[in-house]
Amino acid sequence: MKGAKDEGFKTVLVCKKDRTSLYKRFKFIDDIFEIDQNSESISPECQEYLKENGCILIPHGSLIAYSDIDYIEQLTVPIFGNKWILRWEADRNLKQELMTYAGLTTPQAVKSKYDIDRLCIVKLHGAAGGRGYFLAWNRETFEKGALDLIKQKVIKSEDDLYIQEYVKGVPVYLHYFYSSINNEIEFLGVDRRYETDIDGLGRIPASHQLGIGIQTSSYNVIGNFPLVLRESLLGKVYSMGENFVQAAKQLVPPGMIGPFCLEGVCDASGNFVTFEFSARIVAGTNLYVMGSPYSSLIYDDPMSMGRRIALEIKNAQKNTDLKVILT
Amino acid sequence: MKGAKDEGFKTVLVCKKDRTSLYKRFKFIDDIFEIDQNSESISPECQEYLKENGCILIPHGSLIAYSDIDYIEQLTVPIFGNKWILRWEADRNLKQELMTYAGLTTPQAVKSKYDIDRLCIVKLHGAAGGRGYFLAWNRETFEKGALDLIKQKVIKSEDDLYIQEYVKGVPVYLHYFYSSINNEIEFLGVDRRYETDIDGLGRIPASHQLGIGIQTSSYNVIGNFPLVLRESLLGKVYSMGENFVQAAKQLVPPGMIGPFCLEGVCDASGNFVTFEFSARIVAGTNLYVMGSPYSSLIYDDPMSMGRRIALEIKNAQKNTDLKVILT
Amino acid sequence: MKGAKDEGFKTVLVCKKDRTSLYKRFKFIDDIFEIDQNSESISPECQEYLKENGCILIPHGSLIAYSDIDYIEQLTVPIFGNKWILRWEADRNLKQELMTYAGLTTPQAVKSKYDIDRLCIVKLHGAAGGRGYFLAWNRETFEKGALDLIKQKVIKSEDDLYIQEYVKGVPVYLHYFYSSINNEIEFLGVDRRYETDIDGLGRIPASHQLGIGIQTSSYNVIGNFPLVLRESLLGKVYSMGENFVQAAKQLVPPGMIGPFCLEGVCDASGNFVTFEFSARIVAGTNLYVMGSPYSSLIYDDPMSMGRRIALEIKNAQKNTDLKVILT
Repeated sequence: MKGAKDEGFKTVLVCKKDRTSLYKRFKFIDDIFEIDQNSESISPECQEYLKENGCILIPHGSLIAYSDIDYIEQLTVPIFGNKWILRWEADRNLKQELMTYAGLTTPQAVKSKYDIDRLCIVKLHGAAGGRGYFLAWNRETFEKGALDLIKQKVIKSEDDLYIQEYVKGVPVYLHYFYSSINNEIEFLGVDRRYETDIDGLGRIPASHQLGIGIQTSSYNVIGNFPLVLRESLLGKVYSMGENFVQAAKQLVPPGMIGPFCLEGVCDASGNFVTFEFSARIVAGTNLYVMGSPYSSLIYDDPMSMGRRIALEIKNAQKNTDLKVILT
Repeated sequence: MKGAKDEGFKTVLVCKKDRTSLYKRFKFIDDIFEIDQNSESISPECQEYLKENGCILIPHGSLIAYSDIDYIEQLTVPIFGNKWILRWEADRNLKQELMTYAGLTTPQAVKSKYDIDRLCIVKLHGAAGGRGYFLAWNRETFEKGALDLIKQKVIKSEDDLYIQEYVKGVPVYLHYFYSSINNEIEFLGVDRRYETDIDGLGRIPASHQLGIGIQTSSYNVIGNFPLVLRESLLGKVYSMGENFVQAAKQLVPPGMIGPFCLEGVCDASGNFVTFEFSARIVAGTNLYVMGSPYSSLIYDDPMSMGRRIALEIKNAQKNTDLKVILT
Repeated sequence: MKGAKDEGFKTVLVCKKDRTSLYKRFKFIDDIFEIDQNSESISPECQEYLKENGCILIPHGSLIAYSDIDYIEQLTVPIFGNKWILRWEADRNLKQELMTYAGLTTPQAVKSKYDIDRLCIVKLHGAAGGRGYFLAWNRETFEKGALDLIKQKVIKSEDDLYIQEYVKGVPVYLHYFYSSINNEIEFLGVDRRYETDIDGLGRIPASHQLGIGIQTSSYNVIGNFPLVLRESLLGKVYSMGENFVQAAKQLVPPGMIGPFCLEGVCDASGNFVTFEFSARIVAGTNLYVMGSPYSSLIYDDPMSMGRRIALEIKNAQKNTDLKVILT
């Protein structure tokens, strides 16, 4: 929203009632449309309002986490980017298909709890900020973790979970912008998520961990750290982004448009293992409201991801047809 | 000082003699008043000098760590903010009272070493940058840790220590500015402290930690990492700040004025557990000399915490009475 | 290169063929000279080209990692800074000699694998970004680690390794610029390396580490985190830099010129233990393309390390003789 404002747009926030008091603090938000519920967050009334006011909807993680994908696909308000790719982000199998097609190295999937024979990480489908993730290294520990989640009503059954081998290395989240107008990819930043309480675990001596009986931990994302990458990795980073864009063009027309994020670990050999992607703007870009070390190599103005989106809309209006970047 | 200069003020640094060579490097320091000692760091001569030159004293952590609180309260030089609240920061019991009154979740206090029945962290009273903190999980480990500190002359007796349950989660330090003139709170940044050698502990394999016999560690703050928070936490962050401001208004008139920091961990459920506050500018704001992602949502200029203080002084001079923000 | 451009210079990149496609993305690179090989990366043809175009070569880590030091010393193209000091960076014994002469605290060297009686870190000579580093705590673990590296063809024999005691604490990398023209040192930033997979180790519970049998890890640098230091450490940071500059003046005329980095850990007592230095621009400065909190205390413009180098060249041209900063 800040970026849109900086590029001269008026801004409307679609927001749950209990959060409007937070967002009213910020002058770059011109207007707020309050909603009650989540699964149909962009209600017919909301859509009408947005269309009447000539709005373009910018999808983000919460939209996918809380709204039904079928519902999102049926929205008639113009959406920046490719709304059809959001299903590929939310559905575990489609997600894997797209990553494989893009030639990305991904963690080995473990098909069943009976096949767990090494350290694995168990995840939920969809965007949920790491909520409910847990470690398992055999059937028993999987079942125990699943049962905990069922009790907490985070999942309904074990079927809501999928299992990946745990890849040793360090987490890295790569922020890209693909301009379908210029047919050019821009690497605009990188972050490392801050997850509780796994990122506090190393601060407990091993002897206490054993004494207290810590067997697993949680991966609830509560923030992001800024980061730059070793320069020799940048070639690989750009290739991965380009391969992803190519794959999306073929599997999910009209392909990737605008911001996306490849999420994984960099292992001891300097190889990226990608375990997720986000096909829209991600929370980590909040680090770079004033631009990132990478954006400043491309743009003189402080270019946040939000502003880059706004710039793309302006460029489409000026140089081609706005429709090419909307669905 | 940099921020004060940017807002057009002249600056005087009160500084120990052995550190003036460091500060003479920086052009935004117009004048240095050298002092010898610490417990009465702002000596009568110093106060005379500051008053003659029309100075406003900006308190920070070292003032509280090295000066007697009684002495600070008796200073006659105008102090930015509420000097009476500094005692509530330095005194463990008052500190807890204010946090409880503000409705902040705090770690459970453990009253005596005989009550230690889980992993606990043992701390010193006052601002000392984490120095002397240690882990204990029973009476024996508490006594061993205390004895070490007594031998090192960090404390005189076990009475200088207090015990808190150890809260699992990740550390988070929230930087606020409360404008008593506008009756508005601003969330200007967040950091995570860098502590030695606890933050190096996770880099030692568990097998070595056990082999070497690492039982505990130290929490000496040597730096700060920048960070942004998950956006859905911001509502809570603002509420906590507002509750703290309300509580301070009632318990410590004239209440909180200017910068403060809530310091704690964010646990696996995304709840903040606050273990400390600082009722003045904190070291973590040094990260944001050029502004933070959060300040840039509010201000067009790069707004450091120091500059925000200077701006408040200018606003008071212009729109109301300077006295309302001084004690 | 970005900094050079910002100061009005034309830029030429010397680059391996397979990486030109990456660098062609950036507008601040005016010209690219492609090379095939590494050990004589700045070939006679390359040198001729650079000299014809009035270039000044800015050395960086890859030049030292991939080129022979004898070859670098024989280059006839003007090099910014003191090319003779690069040998002192690449050679373990000379490196130690310079650090000792500068009065820096360094980790105790362990002369032979038979002397390993505590936790040690085993390293390779030269700049290799932490590649091949491993932990050892007795002769057997040293030999096992060495054998692995020989098999991987990273080293030829155990003689390519050296052993240091492992210093507990947190890693800190200090970025300095020494202006030989002004005889002034500037502390321009600090980072903490992001190393795989050691920095992911703390995210694996101790019970799993033991279960999986993790004994050691790798230290492959894949990025850098920004950081600020506790203000009370800055006096020490400046002294260390000045002592290093003094030592270099005496041992390696004409001494240190321009950027350098002191690399070490800060231990539980707040003392720096320096295990390496880089006598040229380092990768961590990529964090501060838009300036750092420290550079902004000195410069109004966003002053990256690259831009600071360019500024020094301009200052030399204007106020003295360009030759004093070249070798």
